Amino acid sequence: MSTDPLVVFTPSGKRGRFAKGTPILTAARQLGVDLDSVCGGRGICSKCQIAPSFGDFPKHGITVAQDALSKWNAVEERYQQKRGLKPGRRLGCQATVQGDVVIDVPPESQVHRQVVRKAAAVRAIEMDPATRLFYVEVEEPDMHEPTGDLERVARALQAQWGIEEISTDFSTLPLLQPILRKGQWRITVALHKRDKSALPKLIAAWPGLHEAGIFGLAIDLGSTTIAAHLTNLDTGEVVASAGIMNPQIRFGEDLMSRVSYAMMNPGGAVEMTRTVREAIDQLTNDIAAEAGIAPALILETVFVCNPVMHHLLLGIDPVELGQAPFALATSNAIDMTATELGLTALPGAAQIYLLPCIAGHVGADAAAVALSEQPGKSEDLALIVDVGTNAEILLGNTTRVLACSSPTGPAFEGAQISSGQRAAPGAIEAIRIDPMTKEPRFRVIGCDLWSDEDGFWDRTAATGITGICGSGIIEAVAELRLAGLMDASGLIGSAEQTGTARCLPAGRTHEYLIHDATAEGGPRITVTQGDIRAIQLAKSALYAGARLLMDEMGVDKVDRVVLAGAFGAHISSIHAMVLGMIPDVPLDKVTSAGNAAGTGARIALCNVAARREIEQTVRRITKVETAIEPKFQEHFVAANAIPHKTDPFPELLKIVTLPQVSFNTGGDSEGGGRRRRRRAG
Amino acid sequence: MSTDPLVVFTPSGKRGRFAKGTPILTAARQLGVDLDSVCGGRGICSKCQIAPSFGDFPKHGITVAQDALSKWNAVEERYQQKRGLKPGRRLGCQATVQGDVVIDVPPESQVHRQVVRKAAAVRAIEMDPATRLFYVEVEEPDMHEPTGDLERVARALQAQWGIEEISTDFSTLPLLQPILRKGQWRITVALHKRDKSALPKLIAAWPGLHEAGIFGLAIDLGSTTIAAHLTNLDTGEVVASAGIMNPQIRFGEDLMSRVSYAMMNPGGAVEMTRTVREAIDQLTNDIAAEAGIAPALILETVFVCNPVMHHLLLGIDPVELGQAPFALATSNAIDMTATELGLTALPGAAQIYLLPCIAGHVGADAAAVALSEQPGKSEDLALIVDVGTNAEILLGNTTRVLACSSPTGPAFEGAQISSGQRAAPGAIEAIRIDPMTKEPRFRVIGCDLWSDEDGFWDRTAATGITGICGSGIIEAVAELRLAGLMDASGLIGSAEQTGTARCLPAGRTHEYLIHDATAEGGPRITVTQGDIRAIQLAKSALYAGARLLMDEMGVDKVDRVVLAGAFGAHISSIHAMVLGMIPDVPLDKVTSAGNAAGTGARIALCNVAARREIEQTVRRITKVETAIEPKFQEHFVAANAIPHKTDPFPELLKIVTLPQVSFNTGGDSEGGGRRRRRRAG
Repeated sequence: MSTDPLVVFTPSGKRGRFAKGTPILTAARQLGVDLDSVCGGRGICSKCQIAPSFGDFPKHGITVAQDALSKWNAVEERYQQKRGLKPGRRLGCQATVQGDVVIDVPPESQVHRQVVRKAAAVRAIEMDPATRLFYVEVEEPDMHEPTGDLERVARALQAQWGIEEISTDFSTLPLLQPILRKGQWRITVALHKRDKSALPKLIAAWPGLHEAGIFGLAIDLGSTTIAAHLTNLDTGEVVASAGIMNPQIRFGEDLMSRVSYAMMNPGGAVEMTRTVREAIDQLTNDIAAEAGIAPALILETVFVCNPVMHHLLLGIDPVELGQAPFALATSNAIDMTATELGLTALPGAAQIYLLPCIAGHVGADAAAVALSEQPGKSEDLALIVDVGTNAEILLGNTTRVLACSSPTGPAFEGAQISSGQRAAPGAIEAIRIDPMTKEPRFRVIGCDLWSDEDGFWDRTAATGITGICGSGIIEAVAELRLAGLMDASGLIGSAEQTGTARCLPAGRTHEYLIHDATAEGGPRITVTQGDIRAIQLAKSALYAGARLLMDEMGVDKVDRVVLAGAFGAHISSIHAMVLGMIPDVPLDKVTSAGNAAGTGARIALCNVAARREIEQTVRRITKVETAIEPKFQEHFVAANAIPHKTDPFPELLKIVTLPQVSFNTGGDSEGGGRRRRRRAG
Repeated sequence: MSTDPLVVFTPSGKRGRFAKGTPILTAARQLGVDLDSVCGGRGICSKCQIAPSFGDFPKHGITVAQDALSKWNAVEERYQQKRGLKPGRRLGCQATVQGDVVIDVPPESQVHRQVVRKAAAVRAIEMDPATRLFYVEVEEPDMHEPTGDLERVARALQAQWGIEEISTDFSTLPLLQPILRKGQWRITVALHKRDKSALPKLIAAWPGLHEAGIFGLAIDLGSTTIAAHLTNLDTGEVVASAGIMNPQIRFGEDLMSRVSYAMMNPGGAVEMTRTVREAIDQLTNDIAAEAGIAPALILETVFVCNPVMHHLLLGIDPVELGQAPFALATSNAIDMTATELGLTALPGAAQIYLLPCIAGHVGADAAAVALSEQPGKSEDLALIVDVGTNAEILLGNTTRVLACSSPTGPAFEGAQISSGQRAAPGAIEAIRIDPMTKEPRFRVIGCDLWSDEDGFWDRTAATGITGICGSGIIEAVAELRLAGLMDASGLIGSAEQTGTARCLPAGRTHEYLIHDATAEGGPRITVTQGDIRAIQLAKSALYAGARLLMDEMGVDKVDRVVLAGAFGAHISSIHAMVLGMIPDVPLDKVTSAGNAAGTGARIALCNVAARREIEQTVRRITKVETAIEPKFQEHFVAANAIPHKTDPFPELLKIVTLPQVSFNTGGDSEGGGRRRRRRAG
């Protein structure tokens, strides 16, 4: 029976007996305990910090003496002097086993540490990045043994880290010789391993121990906006977030108009590809500057996007996505390099990962939502709606997951709205209309006061009131209905019919005046009949998509609704339901997931196993094609009213009273007509 | 016991019994008989042509009846009408087994056919290219099964060719959808498989059956010239050859001056990289135009080059190659794409292969010579000398192979010679000096007559006599020695000393007049004392390198000498020996291998297994570094005389008489002095 001391690691509970003098890092490795190290046990990276516990541990059956570990040594002392160690901490590579001991591995010393998401967390992100750092000491070249420098780096990785074989990105090769000499044959390399069985690829190197970290970008490439989160690949921390408009908007506001642009203009697709890549380069430089890091440290980028953006990013003409059967050029996930993708702000060897597409109209963004929200792991039936220029809709539970995409158009993002604008300081993001006085009050982005509160006008003087963003217009339309200023068909009444001078004639219809700053040279912000039609089209498309999935699933109600999308967090559930955007559920069953697609991108960025997981999941999702399904049109037409004519919305009626008004002054079929034109385009 | 008919294939001798009705192609595949097919047995590619034999075959123990194969069918008839089949040929995918039969697979129907090299063939090239064509019929997209087009191509390759999984070059992806539609879901794809265990990578596609072939470039990237052979990857046939000057010459004529340029000029290496890549693009376009093919059909390129050119091609600063310990950035073979290498004339997905380097001064060109000439398989001790601006020298037999590189400088290529020029029409390539009259006669490139033969002057009137190329200057110096116009130390005598008015004063030394066309406005072509010094330096370096290897091997003679290099074919063995370029061996033991490096490149281009072979071979070659070996300098100084002072050259003296003349008029140490300067530079 062994009399070697017992070492117990917490929180894993892994334990084993080790000879006296065994470094804790060595013991951890032999037991498969998750203890980080970049320098390989040389006492310079401090990643392997551990916290020994002393005293009686009846649970583990041992008593830990004060001398259970070797004494504080010179390496630890030097590190303590230079950087400081937290009290009670030791370096796992220096402290050696001397007696039975309990060793706690603090979260920051774990490679696979968990990163808790800020927003309503469905799942924590476990760190398991595809790219990791390895410090090595490389043999110097020798004329009598004339291997190349790269081959000696590979040999050092083999000897010092047990990495049998590597490949190399060729854009890294020209940098290697000067780095080796600058580091005096001690360097840190970044190895990318796309999955467990893949050959690690050398994609970056630095002289000596690289301490500035490496970073990854999670990019949600939307039709309207491009949003990026810059993440530390070691800690998982988001160090900067930034967004810019997608400059492709000048070629068409929605996806189909961009496909049309590609079809009508030779070289149009190439131009859109160039444009979006330039924007990503710009965004990369901006976000790196904001975080104060060199773009050369960004070694991983994950993209989520709809299929049209996916193809345009890859340089594939999206023409096939504009016509049945909506064939994707490729649906699988893609691993490539920044060089291959034609991005120049990132280092050429930076690894790019695109999540898989689900179908021709259901893209990598929907896959990312599925990765983030996990409908396939939900016991109750969840409807997940990611609202953007297109709505991605997922319906499912543990038995089955369905997905579709619905062409809502950009109205929910404030585009094609008379006073619409994107979410930026000065934009009205929330509005209430008093049912008695018919007077509005509102809140704008950049100020947390309502417009009828003291100080609002002072606080907003700098930006002014500039327009209405997506969440604002949704609330405005719902509030018009709740205040009795608009009937179920969506018509705004006249001043006579409604009793407020804010309802003004505008051509053959009426508009509602929210704010008039024309006297001070500012804008006049109204909700027009056209705006309401645009919102009706959008919400009908969204609702029809959800209903189509419910039909396919054979249900007429869902247990809960998750609103996702860049502005999902800002839509009030009640207004969404008043508008009829989502099926009727109890109000407490509507939650917001924030930017679920972006979260999915972050998960894939931080955890390489999650990439393989979503690739598997996507194959099991049933895709429903809205464009060819006659029932989609039926649901769409039926969903035009606010709330729907065919749907009593009992849950809604428990909460609000919808006024029984009608302002119809004749046949108004404008909505349906415009709708048909847009889909044909 | 089976009564199925017996099928015997020749020349392989493989045999087996197959049910009546089995197509011959199917039988061949089951037996592992090498029978080509691109269309997979659909009767459209005609690659699987076979020749049945009828009658008695006692050797095989069978008699083949006239009805041993199925009748000529409609598919064969259509092919016969459209393209014609040779008499006696059938399509292996159409003709089915009906009785015992002997089937000959003609060479052109074999995938692994042998290509016999034109020049003295050490080995035939067996075709086994890394890239092959596969015709597939792809399922059309379906909205209810929304996989991407690429994934359906992969599925077709799996179902129709048993190829389990593929990867894809992303530059090919944007082309796939239009090609599939143009081919009405029948396409030919090119799959590249870098070795047996690698995943096949889709690198090109064409609508329908692609019949225009695919091609490869074997490029010998020299310091002075870049030579390319365009090869059909199906047949191995060289369809065009072309060469251009290496435009890097403007940065320095020899390798060390280019390294110096990189050291002295910030961005100099980058500029040289750009320049050489542009030249390769130009050469690619030129050679494709010459062969009348689209550059897009060139899917493989193999490079052989010395280490400095290797690094400059890859965009690696060669500075480390200019100073001990001459560390290569990487020594292993390299597989990459045209995109990664920054070449634009080739399709982006075209595969690039660089042979491995042997050492800091012994490059992929030497590896290519080893692949072509196989010193490690030679029973007798072979010295292989590849003469260029640097000489690559290999010495070996089945027991051991040694290699070194010797800095001969560009004199052997006609550079740094007063009347020197590169090998082009009008250049003197051979010369004889009558020992009695001391008069020269010569031959120029572009005319097979000697200058004293009838018609020579008419035939050369168009080009004129423009200069002396590398082989011409070697012969001229040797002939001056044989004619008694130059002494063993290399000094040209005066008119008085030599008795010919062609020996003219030139400064403090003399020159020999070969041809004077100044009266007609043409050049005056002489051999100056400086030219002789340049040749002496070059030949001493070459000889010293060979001797160094012999020392290392512990021998003082070799069994045979192989002269390789672009102009190896043109040097007369006897003149090389008179000059003392090569150690003394019987004249019939000196052979020319032509451009052995280029041949090695062609072998690697046509046969993927040869790449792995040379990668293994290179590891077993012992590298000898000339630059640090004191004995190199000793051999170098001792080899200055013509022939060497220390070396009796007995074999040479059996053939020629070297006149015992001496024209020394005082100390002449110019050669050694210049030599030291050049090496220091």
